[in-house]
Amino acid sequence: MKNYNISIIKGDGIGPEIVDEAIKVLDAVSYSCGFSLEYKEYLMGGIAIDMTGVPLPDETVQGVLNSDACLFGSIGGEKWDTLPRELRPETGLLKFREAMGVYANLRPAIIYDELVNASTLKPEVIEGVDIMVVRELIGGIYFGQPRENDGFKAFNTMVYTKPEIERIGKKAFELAMKRDKRVCSVDKANVLEVSQLWRDTMEELSKDYPEVELSHMYVDNAAMQLVRNPKQFDVIVTGNIFGDILSDTASMVVGSIGLLPSASTGDKTAVYEPIHGSAPDIAGQGIANPIATIESAGMMLRYSLGEDEAANKIDSAIKKALKDGYRTKDLAAYDAKEIVTTAEMGDIIANYI
Amino acid sequence: MKNYNISIIKGDGIGPEIVDEAIKVLDAVSYSCGFSLEYKEYLMGGIAIDMTGVPLPDETVQGVLNSDACLFGSIGGEKWDTLPRELRPETGLLKFREAMGVYANLRPAIIYDELVNASTLKPEVIEGVDIMVVRELIGGIYFGQPRENDGFKAFNTMVYTKPEIERIGKKAFELAMKRDKRVCSVDKANVLEVSQLWRDTMEELSKDYPEVELSHMYVDNAAMQLVRNPKQFDVIVTGNIFGDILSDTASMVVGSIGLLPSASTGDKTAVYEPIHGSAPDIAGQGIANPIATIESAGMMLRYSLGEDEAANKIDSAIKKALKDGYRTKDLAAYDAKEIVTTAEMGDIIANYI
Ligand SMILES: CC(C)[C@H](C(=O)O)[C@@H](O)C(=O)O
Ligand SMILES: CC(C)[C@H](C(=O)O)[C@@H](O)C(=O)O
Repeated sequence: MKNYNISIIKGDGIGPEIVDEAIKVLDAVSYSCGFSLEYKEYLMGGIAIDMTGVPLPDETVQGVLNSDACLFGSIGGEKWDTLPRELRPETGLLKFREAMGVYANLRPAIIYDELVNASTLKPEVIEGVDIMVVRELIGGIYFGQPRENDGFKAFNTMVYTKPEIERIGKKAFELAMKRDKRVCSVDKANVLEVSQLWRDTMEELSKDYPEVELSHMYVDNAAMQLVRNPKQFDVIVTGNIFGDILSDTASMVVGSIGLLPSASTGDKTAVYEPIHGSAPDIAGQGIANPIATIESAGMMLRYSLGEDEAANKIDSAIKKALKDGYRTKDLAAYDAKEIVTTAEMGDIIANYI
Repeated sequence: MKNYNISIIKGDGIGPEIVDEAIKVLDAVSYSCGFSLEYKEYLMGGIAIDMTGVPLPDETVQGVLNSDACLFGSIGGEKWDTLPRELRPETGLLKFREAMGVYANLRPAIIYDELVNASTLKPEVIEGVDIMVVRELIGGIYFGQPRENDGFKAFNTMVYTKPEIERIGKKAFELAMKRDKRVCSVDKANVLEVSQLWRDTMEELSKDYPEVELSHMYVDNAAMQLVRNPKQFDVIVTGNIFGDILSDTASMVVGSIGLLPSASTGDKTAVYEPIHGSAPDIAGQGIANPIATIESAGMMLRYSLGEDEAANKIDSAIKKALKDGYRTKDLAAYDAKEIVTTAEMGDIIANYI
């Protein structure tokens, strides 16, 4: 029987609760599909600060690098916001992404038919939306040097090299080949030199993918178009900070932020996590929605382990749970037949597998 | 009789048509309110390239600096997109903003009751939205040095100094004092040093405005919140590139991009223009919507000339035209009683004054 090593980072806030449900579902699906998963837990974020003094212990870096893939909950909380910058949960997160080499952050924004009313956008505008945002994750202004704040003047550097743009571009084109074969590259080439290099490199790269249609859009226009007509997009590829903004916009456009997963992939390993945060205000109450994390576990099976059948089973079980009217509290207003707890939702989905 | 010197830049695409209608309305309102306006026209953008070889002739800079205020149409078009960077219309625009010292770009996003259905967002989400986006316009990554693209590596610098942040912050707080007394400062302080200085400076500044409530939001969250619940915002203040993205998002949220004006102000002079672009595809057909430009002329009367009564008259005339069901083609789908041309819309609004 095939066996995979999965590293687990539960993190802060609702992280532990939602990851537990994803593990429940993973256990059900691996049993039914004939493979086994071995989990090892590591610390990161606020809990790591509390227990070890640093947001990202070395052991976590080594452990995750040695695993087949990592399932991640969420980190951070007000408690740690006043620490010096190098000790904050976010700093740990950025170091972690860099150490894992996960340069490509994939964020699907899709509509669940049952929840089309959960968006603030009109149903006819969002029905059928299926966007994949491909965000560069370990470069750009997040990591650029030099950077400084002397209290009077402060600066950061937005920087990309051609190889960095090429590898994220390739990811986008390859994803597009399995989808609707359209890539929209988002930049600000009318103002920024770094965007001009981005655009030129994407243009060159597109010659290797003659079947894929490449278009370019300025970031301000892209933000508008996501609100105006999100159906026009298939794959969006963009740099770190623009991707941060646009992927959040896209997830809000489809309206179901508690349902959207993400994958951060590179050449070494991959990290799977819900796009929502650690929501400390509702932690421990059993009302968090575990579906985004369960979906993330599904992406892990598909992209890192090649267990497509198992991933499909998870997708179907989630859809069935939603169709049957089970809702956690956050979605109570949208055609709920029964309001369930975090753990109950995990049970229902695991049972449907 | 009071006399004001107004510089006019019609620009490219639909620019000339829409500015002509704004002048028509300005003439009507100045006559009825007992002041006079003297116009001088200057070249900028593509037309300036065609006629003088450069996108921003010196004469334009001097002329506008010597005027009381500038009314601006729109610039740019595909025709000039392949020129070297320093000759493009956008480069002229950025140089122009810098030369005018217009550091504060004010972009109101409001709802016209008659057009509440023109947004892709549900009416109940946007009814009553009234946001003022205050964008820093002559600093940040748009102008930061060093900047370079050598074909392999490219970079830009995002930079702000404390005085730059203070002057834009003051604008925001002062505007808030005349509105709902809430300022939301948007940054990415969990990642960027320059945002940390931004946040600290806003925090300090807020002590001078004890009546105003200051909050902070990360840019990714702000983009989401504009879609999720735009009513929560009063004044948003942010840097150049974040403001570029968020002000476009806000305008699309309210849905009436053809109706929204903007003001770019500083210590020397001010420039008033519609937020939409030059739309070369519909230029010369008499179907462009002149309302955003007419509204911009109204902002000019209010903010630069102190002619509030005249500005109010323009606002009322626009509202009446919309209420009476007159629509240019772009808004034909929203409770139109009669579809009118660009010039007819100008006539109707001028007549209502
Ligand atoms: C917490 C923060 C540093 C992070 C980012 O900006 O990348 C978050 O917003 C995200 O999108 O994962
Ligand atoms: C044309 C472009 C340079 C400009 C900007 O980015 O400032 C435009 O998008 C705007 O918002 O006025």
